[in-house]
Parts: sequence; C-alpha cells; structure tokens
Amino acid sequence: MNLKWIIIAAGILVCLNFSMVAQQKPQTLLLMPYPANVVQQEGSFRFSKAFSVATEGPANKRLYSGASRFLRRLDGRTGLFFEQEHVTAESKPAAQGLLIKTQRAGEVKLEEDESYRLRVGSSGIVLEAVNDIGALRGLETLLQLVQADEQGYFIPAVEIEDSPRFPWRGLMIDVARHFQPMEVIKRNLDGMAAVKMNVLHLHLTDDQGFRVESKVYPQFHEKASEGDYFTQEQIREIIRYADERGIRVVPEFDVPGHATSWVVAFPELASAPGPYSLENNAGIFDPTLDPSNEKTYEVLQGLFAEMAELFPDPYFHIGGDENEGKQWDANPEIQAFMKKHKLADNHALQTYFNNRIISFLEQKGKRVIGWDEILQPNLSKSSVIHSWRGPKGLQEAARQGYTTILSNGYYIDLMHRASDHYLNDPLPKGNTLTEEERKRVLGGEAPIWSELVTPATIDSRIWPRTAAIAERLWSPREVNDVEDMYRRLDYISFRLEELGLQHKRNQQVLLRNLSNGKSIEPLQTLVDVAEPMKGYTRNPGGTTFKTYSPYTLFADAAMADAPAARRFNRLVEQYFQTKDEATKAEIIQWLEKWKENHALMLPLIAQSPVLKSIEELSANLSTIAALGLQVLSADAGVGSAKKKAQSAVDKKRAKEQLQKAREQGGRTELQVVDAIEKLVLKDSTSSVGG
Amino acid sequence: MNLKWIIIAAGILVCLNFSMVAQQKPQTLLLMPYPANVVQQEGSFRFSKAFSVATEGPANKRLYSGASRFLRRLDGRTGLFFEQEHVTAESKPAAQGLLIKTQRAGEVKLEEDESYRLRVGSSGIVLEAVNDIGALRGLETLLQLVQADEQGYFIPAVEIEDSPRFPWRGLMIDVARHFQPMEVIKRNLDGMAAVKMNVLHLHLTDDQGFRVESKVYPQFHEKASEGDYFTQEQIREIIRYADERGIRVVPEFDVPGHATSWVVAFPELASAPGPYSLENNAGIFDPTLDPSNEKTYEVLQGLFAEMAELFPDPYFHIGGDENEGKQWDANPEIQAFMKKHKLADNHALQTYFNNRIISFLEQKGKRVIGWDEILQPNLSKSSVIHSWRGPKGLQEAARQGYTTILSNGYYIDLMHRASDHYLNDPLPKGNTLTEEERKRVLGGEAPIWSELVTPATIDSRIWPRTAAIAERLWSPREVNDVEDMYRRLDYISFRLEELGLQHKRNQQVLLRNLSNGKSIEPLQTLVDVAEPMKGYTRNPGGTTFKTYSPYTLFADAAMADAPAARRFNRLVEQYFQTKDEATKAEIIQWLEKWKENHALMLPLIAQSPVLKSIEELSANLSTIAALGLQVLSADAGVGSAKKKAQSAVDKKRAKEQLQKAREQGGRTELQVVDAIEKLVLKDSTSSVGG
Repeated sequence: MNLKWIIIAAGILVCLNFSMVAQQKPQTLLLMPYPANVVQQEGSFRFSKAFSVATEGPANKRLYSGASRFLRRLDGRTGLFFEQEHVTAESKPAAQGLLIKTQRAGEVKLEEDESYRLRVGSSGIVLEAVNDIGALRGLETLLQLVQADEQGYFIPAVEIEDSPRFPWRGLMIDVARHFQPMEVIKRNLDGMAAVKMNVLHLHLTDDQGFRVESKVYPQFHEKASEGDYFTQEQIREIIRYADERGIRVVPEFDVPGHATSWVVAFPELASAPGPYSLENNAGIFDPTLDPSNEKTYEVLQGLFAEMAELFPDPYFHIGGDENEGKQWDANPEIQAFMKKHKLADNHALQTYFNNRIISFLEQKGKRVIGWDEILQPNLSKSSVIHSWRGPKGLQEAARQGYTTILSNGYYIDLMHRASDHYLNDPLPKGNTLTEEERKRVLGGEAPIWSELVTPATIDSRIWPRTAAIAERLWSPREVNDVEDMYRRLDYISFRLEELGLQHKRNQQVLLRNLSNGKSIEPLQTLVDVAEPMKGYTRNPGGTTFKTYSPYTLFADAAMADAPAARRFNRLVEQYFQTKDEATKAEIIQWLEKWKENHALMLPLIAQSPVLKSIEELSANLSTIAALGLQVLSADAGVGSAKKKAQSAVDKKRAKEQLQKAREQGGRTELQVVDAIEKLVLKDSTSSVGG
Repeated sequence: MNLKWIIIAAGILVCLNFSMVAQQKPQTLLLMPYPANVVQQEGSFRFSKAFSVATEGPANKRLYSGASRFLRRLDGRTGLFFEQEHVTAESKPAAQGLLIKTQRAGEVKLEEDESYRLRVGSSGIVLEAVNDIGALRGLETLLQLVQADEQGYFIPAVEIEDSPRFPWRGLMIDVARHFQPMEVIKRNLDGMAAVKMNVLHLHLTDDQGFRVESKVYPQFHEKASEGDYFTQEQIREIIRYADERGIRVVPEFDVPGHATSWVVAFPELASAPGPYSLENNAGIFDPTLDPSNEKTYEVLQGLFAEMAELFPDPYFHIGGDENEGKQWDANPEIQAFMKKHKLADNHALQTYFNNRIISFLEQKGKRVIGWDEILQPNLSKSSVIHSWRGPKGLQEAARQGYTTILSNGYYIDLMHRASDHYLNDPLPKGNTLTEEERKRVLGGEAPIWSELVTPATIDSRIWPRTAAIAERLWSPREVNDVEDMYRRLDYISFRLEELGLQHKRNQQVLLRNLSNGKSIEPLQTLVDVAEPMKGYTRNPGGTTFKTYSPYTLFADAAMADAPAARRFNRLVEQYFQTKDEATKAEIIQWLEKWKENHALMLPLIAQSPVLKSIEELSANLSTIAALGLQVLSADAGVGSAKKKAQSAVDKKRAKEQLQKAREQGGRTELQVVDAIEKLVLKDSTSSVGG
C-alpha cells in the first residue's frame, strides 16, 4: 500500500503528538468519537450525482432505512441530486458507490457488536460490519469524513477499523422536571446516533410530574402530569425510532423518594398523610412511598408489569436516590414495621423495599438499575449500580461484584465545560480493578436534569458537550487531547444542526427576543464570553426558578463553553509562552471589541428592560478590556516610556475592577477575567512584549 | 375621556393618512391583523411581578389554559417572574391585573362569535368577550400591544373593539407531497392563533402519499405513505390542540384525481390497470378512481365514515381538482357506464361521482367542500366551492347559490410577495354581488402546497406572509396600506419566533450548512436581495426536484420578500421623488456592500461547491452595484465634471450587464435589478442629485 502518512489514533503516535508537539502534528480528521484505528492514504473518493449505495448480506430493514437516511443527509449537504431514492435489497453496487457488507441482523441490546471497518479509495467505498448496527456507526463516520474543495465533495482515502471501548454509552433525559415532547426526544436520538451513543435513559417520574400514560392506573398521568406525558403510542414510537438508530431505551421510575407525583395520584401510598400537589421548586422533597404498606407493592407491581412490557429493554431503572427518610422517621407504623422485620435503619428499609421490587421485576425478565444509594448490604447482586456520587462508589460496587454505570462527572445540566467531562474516565489510567472487575464497568451516561431546561434550551445544554462524553465512552482512553477535542467538537457542533438539533439556532432566537428584535451583535459578543453559573449556584435554594419561571433569559442563551472566552484564554496563554506579535494583535482585537461593546449594549438595554440584569456584567467586560488594552499598549512602548505607561495602571484599582468583574450578572459569569488579570497584574507581563 | 389622539383604523383617517401623508401620520400600533376599532388614550398600564390574570363568567377550561399560556408568553418576554402559575376559576382579580369577562363557552365552529373588547388603563386591563374564543383573540392583541422603555414593560392606554370581517380564515397545509410531522402542525397552529386564523385545512392525500391511519382500510397508510402518516391518536391530538386555540380542523381527501396513493393501496379502484407506485415528481398525473366501479364507493364510504367520525368538524373536503380524465377516456367500461347513465362527458361523470359521495357524507352530517372544478351543472347546492382558479369562479359560484372560499391569490407556495396576497380581497371594492350573495363568501385560505417544502423550510414559506393574508381576512377592507402592512409584518415576524416558528432561525441553519460552517455574512447579504423563482418556474416540468431531492439549497434559504431588496427599492423610489441626500447616502452604502460582497463570496464558494450555482448571481450583484455606484458618484460632481463622469458609464454595456443580472442563479433571482437600472439608465437620473 502506498501510504503517505499514518495515524493510529488509538495507539501511541497521536497522543504523543497531541501532548508534546502540538504545533507540528498533521491535522487529524474531524471525527468524533475518534475511531480506534485510522490509516490515511493517498488519493480520495469523489462524489457525483451517480453516487449510490448498495448492500451485501442478508436483507435488513434497519440497514436499508439507515442507509437511505445517510443518502438523503449527504445529498442535503452536497446538493448533488443523487438519482437513488431508497437503498433496498435490489440496489445494485455501482462503480463509484458505497457497498455495505453485513453478515447478520443486529439486535438492539447490550454488548451487541458495533464494530465496523471502512475502506475509502478512489474507486469506491466499502463498509464492512458484523451487523447493521455496526454499519450504522460506520455510516456516521463516513458522513464526518466528507470534505470539499474547488473540484467538489470527496473523502480522503482512508482505512478505519473501529469498535467501542464501553458497551453502555448513554444520554439520560429528565422529562419529569420540564416535560420534553416527542420532537426533542427524536432530534436528540439523531444527535446520539451521530456520535455513536447507544442508550437513551428516560427519567420518567419525579416530584414535578409523572410522564407516561398508564392504562392500568390512569390516575398517574391524569392527575400528576398537568397533561404533559407520553402516550404509550408515543413511547412505542420513541422505541421504534431509537431502534432504527441502534439505540436502546431504558425507562426510569424513581422510587421510593422523588415521589411527589406518585402520591399526587395515590395519596394512600405516601408515608405521611396528604393531600399532595405537584412540586414547582427544585430540590429534595419529603414525599416518599410507604414500604410498610402492601398497597404500595400492589400498585408498583401493576404499573411495573405494564411498563416492563411497554419497554422491551431488559434493563429497568428504579431510581432510589435521595431518599432522606423524613416521612419514614415520623411515621410510627413504619417504625413498627422496621422493628418487626428487624430493619435497623432507613437504608435497610429501602433495601427491603428494593429487593421486593427487584425480585418482582426479575420475574418479568428485567435487570434492575438504581442510583448509588441502592448499594447497601443485602442488595441483590443482580442490580446495576448507577454512580452519580463519585468514582469511588463506582469502583467499590464493581469490586463487590455489581455491574456499574458512571454518571458522576457527566452531569451536563451543571454547565461545566466539555473539557471537564472529557477527561472523566470510567476506568482511569492506574485504576486498581482486576480485569474481571473492570468488565463490570459498562460505561457511562450523561444526564440532563431538567429543572432549568425547557424544550427551547435543552439542545444547548446537551450539545455539543455530550459529543465529548460520547468520545470518552467510545474511543480509546489515549484519545484525550483537550485542544484537539475542541477543534473537532466545533465541527461536530455545526454538523449536528444539520440533523435538526437547535443548540445554536435557538440561542439566536433567545437573543433576538432579549434584544427586542434589534441587531443581536452586542449581545452575541457578550454571551460569547459569559457562561451560566455552574453547579447548583444558578438557582439558590431551588426556589428562585420554579418550573414555570421564564427560561428565556440571558443565562439561558449562554452556553457552558463560552466560545470567545475559550479562544481568548488560549491566546493569552500562548502569548505568555511565545511573546508572539500576531497573537498579541489578536488579543488586542478582542479587547477592543469588548471595550466598545458596552456602548452598543446601552441603547439595547434602554429599550429592553429584561436586559437590565446584565448591565453591570456588560460594563465590567468593557472596564477590564480597557485595563488589558492599557497594559498591552504600554507594552508596545520601549524602554522607559514602556515602563512609564505601564505604571499608569493603578494596580489596586485594577484589582478591584477585576474582582468586580467576577460577580455574576443575570446568573452568568464572565470567563475572561483570569486571563485579563494575568495580562494586567502578573509580574511576567512586564517582561513580555515588543 | 382625555383622548390624546384617535385612530379609527377601520374607518377613514388611517387609510387616508397612510396613502396620502405617509410621513406625518402618527405611527399605528404594531398590531396584525389590525383591529376594527382602536382608540388610543393617554397613560399606560405598567407590568410588574405581581401582574396576574383573573376571569369572570362561567368556568371555562379553554379560557383558563389560553390565559395561562398568555401569562407564560408574557413572562418569557419580560422576564418578570410572575408569581401566578395557572389561571383557574379560583384566580382572584388583582389591582394591577387583567380581568377577562366572558358570558358563555365558545364553540369551535363556523360563524362562532369571535368579537372582543379591550380596555387598557393605568390601573388595569379588562378584556370582554361573548365567549372564550373571542377572549383568546383579544389576548393575542394584548401580547402585540406590549411595549418597553427604560422604566419597564407597559401597554399604552387604549380601547379596542374588534371582530372579524370573514368567518373562514384558513391555512391549508399539504402534508401529502412532503409529510409534515406533528411539531410542524402544532407550531403553525400557534402561529395561526397569533394572527387570529381559525381553520386548519389538512390536505391529507395526493399522488405522493396517503397521510392518515385508517383502521378500516389499513392498506392506505401501510402501503401508500412510506411510514409517514398521522396516527388517529395524533389526529385527535391535532384537533385538541387546535380546539384549545379556537381553530377548526377540516380534512381533505382528494378524489377522484390526484389518486396515485389511493390506487397504490387499492389498485382495483383505478380506472386503468396497475400496478402503481407513489409519485416522486410534481404535477398532474393520470391515476384516477373508477366511478363506474361499485367497489370504489364501498371503500370510499367505509373510509369516509371512519374519517367523518375522526374529524368532528361538519365540513369535509373532497378535493375534486385537476382530474384530466385520461384514464376514463381510455377505459371502455367507463365509457359504457357513461352511456348507460346518460353522462355526456367527464364533467358529468365526475358530478355523478361527487353527488354520490356528497349524499353519503350528508348522511354522516357533513357538508362537502371541493375545489373549483366540482362546480358543474347538477352539483348539489349544499356544496362549498373552494376557488383556486380565480375570483370570477368565486363570484359565479356565489351567484349560483353556492357557499364559497377563496384561495386564488393566496397560494403562498408560489413565493409571491406579501403585498400581492395582501391586496387580494375575497370581496373587492366594487364587486357586484348582492348582500345575500356576499354572505356566501365565507372567507379564504392560504394553501401551502408542499412539492418543494420540507419540515425545515415550511415555516419560511408560510410566515410571515400568511399574517398579511390573515389581516386581509380579519380586518376591514380599508386597512390596506402596503407600507404600513410591511412595517407591522416585520414586527409580527420577529414575534412569531417566540412561539416556536422557525422561519428565521432555519434560514440561518441552511446558510451555515451552505457556507460549510464558515461565517454566513456574505451569503446573508446575497440572500437578502434574492427571491426564489416565483410561480411554477423553480421546478421545470415538475421533475427537476423530486420528493427526495435536497431542499437545503440557496433557493430554500431565500424568502419571498427579500428584505434588503424591499428596503433598497423603496429608497430608490424615494430618492427619485425627494432627491434627498440622506437617502442617497444609504443607497450608496447598500451598493458598496454589494459591490464588495462577491470578493467575500469567492473564498466561501471555493470551499463549498454547493454554492457554485450562485457564483454568477453573486458576481452579477457586485457588477450592477458597481454600475450604480459609478453613476451616483458621478452624480455627486457638479456641472461639466458631473456630466463627464456620467457619460463614462457605457450604457450599452450597462444594459447587457443589467440584463444578465436578471438571469436566475441557483433557482433564485436578484430583486434589485430594476431599481439599479433606474439609477443607471433612466433619463431622470441626470437631473437627480447633489
């Protein structure tokens, strides 16, 4: 083979390249998750109107529809007007086409083979996979490979062998706090498929609502959803849609805590007398099912029997988190029940409850998943521990023989940066698990809890960061260069819009609304350096924002990775390393833009009072940008003139201004303060420049 | 009353103002459709966090949910964090609140009272209506009235009395050519409600697909939809969603022509032997139901009995258009049948067929609507004639005693400008119908035929132009100033995004895709002066674009009213009238921007081959902009210098260049050629300037 240069991403070259000689390395392809093995070659495959797709192997509906979707997406991107409408069993291999070879029909189940092999050459493309699900993964890679030049669209010749590191790569959507309708679920399934995720976990019930129709106990959706729930027909449609994309659907019914909606429907199942009403705040609430009441088991079994059938996946999530047991402590009958059954504490009582549920669900062919807290002595070993509290719990559970899934570190609702999630490895280097224990770590899930998330903003809370998590769970551990991840993430983020995801377009709608229909440019400049307050700080006490609060504000338009801040912070870092003039010039450009921006914001704010909450934030950005400019322009002087200008920055006052710029505004925070502070105050500054 | 100034929009003042002293008139409020009577007063109502909504009158679910939605939309816009979550029967009137008074529950039916009266004063707002549907119309007006200044959000004191001119104000969505999923229907129902439309007409079947589930004859949706159809549960959900907004849903099952999908499901009903497959092209096709076959009536009656129940509205559309009768002519059995039944021609045969269907549907409590062509001698007088061929047909039908609806002139798929539709009146001034005949003209419908329309682009093909049609059908005939309509339309267009409509945001997604993720600015500049080819010219022969073609191209991003062209053309007109320097300066700004734009487009095109089809269009814009600049800068000279510079424009060459700029590119056309030509070539130019 006439190899030009080789990248084995999985191996040694790339990760060495990335971390040690970042400037010289050849650009990797814009693939995410990055495949296990990539070998680039000379030449390329060029697309024309005659491009077509054929298959070889047993007839396969999932493959035909997936390949037809591939064809339409490619046609939509290239505008080539392909002649082929559908891929079917009759589609004939063409000279300049794609041939997909599979050996058998895939099953949408845990541990199904998802590997594929892709060979792109000037005369054609061959995609081989054991089954259609692997082929679907390969088709997504193929779409990411498409490039363009003046001659047209092409894929550089390449050989890829790829398979996932972990078999469980999930996105959990909380449809309880803010209901998320069908189109949100569907477009996010498309996004998941694009980054090779394979589990959609639906958090269906919580204090704020019960989101699925029950025909056995209609009071659940009728009394406890305010009309926002999935019908069973819709659930089947979600499962079908996910199945077409090789994605499993795992339901969660959270018990015995987080149960306000349950007891709104069935007050008699509560551990304290009602009446109850749906919760509008965020937080941990008291209503808890009564594990001493046989009626509780009767209703749960009736419901779960129905739901076990509705959701065919053998995994079934029962929540189990954050039960503080207050109602249990206060209920003498429950206390008597505990004494009678020799249950020493609330943990033991919950385990008693869990084991009854687990044993029932096992009869229905289900394996039960629960959050961290269900891991207590005597918990059935068949349970899967879903770790949200920390990697220690995960490893401990695996050691004890439990199968586990990691979500700690992947809480995308907390608005941490993609880089934070990216470096969070379910099996970090140097972990001390045995080979067998390691196998019990199935993978991970990114949960989007929806207290502060509506259908209009959810995409920007999930994407593009979830693509970085998807890569962590699919790609080899050694693919971990943050800068390169961001470079590819920017591209993937843009491409996700093509699929219908709305993270970027809806930001602009929010900004247009906030600017009252005027030009959004100054607002865009500001939002590009501001990030929503992280962790649980945006919503103090869980009561500032209620379920019905407006989620149409500046903080809702802000994203977790403020793009201009990311760029600027890197420039400043680079400047301190290289003292490069071009870098400095770009830093100055940014600072000038920000310095001028507040003057542009003021007339916007004057006619849009909803922007008042960010007036100071905007002023602070301009103030510290001016500080930065003052130092950098001083820096441009020489000798004593330079020193003089620099000393003109009143350091005490500058410190105060920088401190002020750290304050939140409109529940967001500026992300360029540290970098500007470095420019303004660090001793090293005086030695940098000209 | 302390009136500051008065506008009676319905009456004389405004229309005189608009057309005669456009510069001096007080700005009308940004309302659309403009109410029948508006009296502005001094003072204003100011919103605070404590704002709340209460009702007076009989308990009314539709009103409570509508008022709650109003509250959330207002909260989303103002960010005031209203304390009130829901409006219920228990909501208590507040000092600084809105009180809604109704007398009875409305019914979602033709001719229901939709009037309302709105009084906004500094101490509160009172909305009165006969029923909740009128109240919903008033709430939309209220949201359009909200303004802002540095002190916050307010509504200027005003008294409005309003009711519709026509009782039938519809949007027809063709879900057959390109299926439109639930979220498209729902967000468009929201848009319809915002502009007080009250009929959603679903064109459910055509040659390209049969889009509704039949439990009686499942072969229709199973064999003839490629999986894209509404389930009956979804239809019920659409009807419920529409009902909540005071909107009727009228189904259309197009027979006996446009019937390819019918005969894909039931080949034995066709007038010629099959087999048939779903159509992928646009146009008029041969497959026609066989009216001589009793089985045809058996199936139609089985299906229609089912559908008559599924769709509760008493109106039922049977299409009936564009049956060219080729299969009938060629079928000897049908010819024999005609002879036997003394049916002289195909028209008579179709009327025979129609009357059998009509009589069956009447037994089911339905009144039948059909397109123009059903109007033939002997057609049952109970039928409603839906006019698509011209106003003559409409008036003729009304004269003959038929009830009518106008769609001719409202075909929004043809990409004509809003102004064209706006001035198209179902009962134009000077019509010669009698009072009684006039009453038979129920109103109109804007049809969006979906040959070239996908879920991603449909909103920009419907909105904002449909708001102008909605105004034509709601507001008094005398509200007809085009400039003022555009001023208000721009505002309404922006507000429609708040409701979830995607006309603007999706344009940007298309442009980002076309620019391959690069800055879209040059493309936006170009698309803002280009409009898709109008009428049926975009898709020659109906075969250039098939159902599965890419609708992601420049023409799909272009809108019917290119906004920069509209602005520029007005400036040039103004300049020729006023010779005003400020106007000239803005003209020059535009021309300079366009002159430079091609240089910015070239690198974009070089890395995005899909843009090649507009390379010439882009070049032409720059060329003619340069021509315009040459003349205008010559114009700036004085005396002989001026004349000299002007003569430097080679008129013959300029004419050629202008001619070339009229050619389509990427199936779009530049909309500033005439105005630039006027600047460059018209004699008057030489007398304009300096």
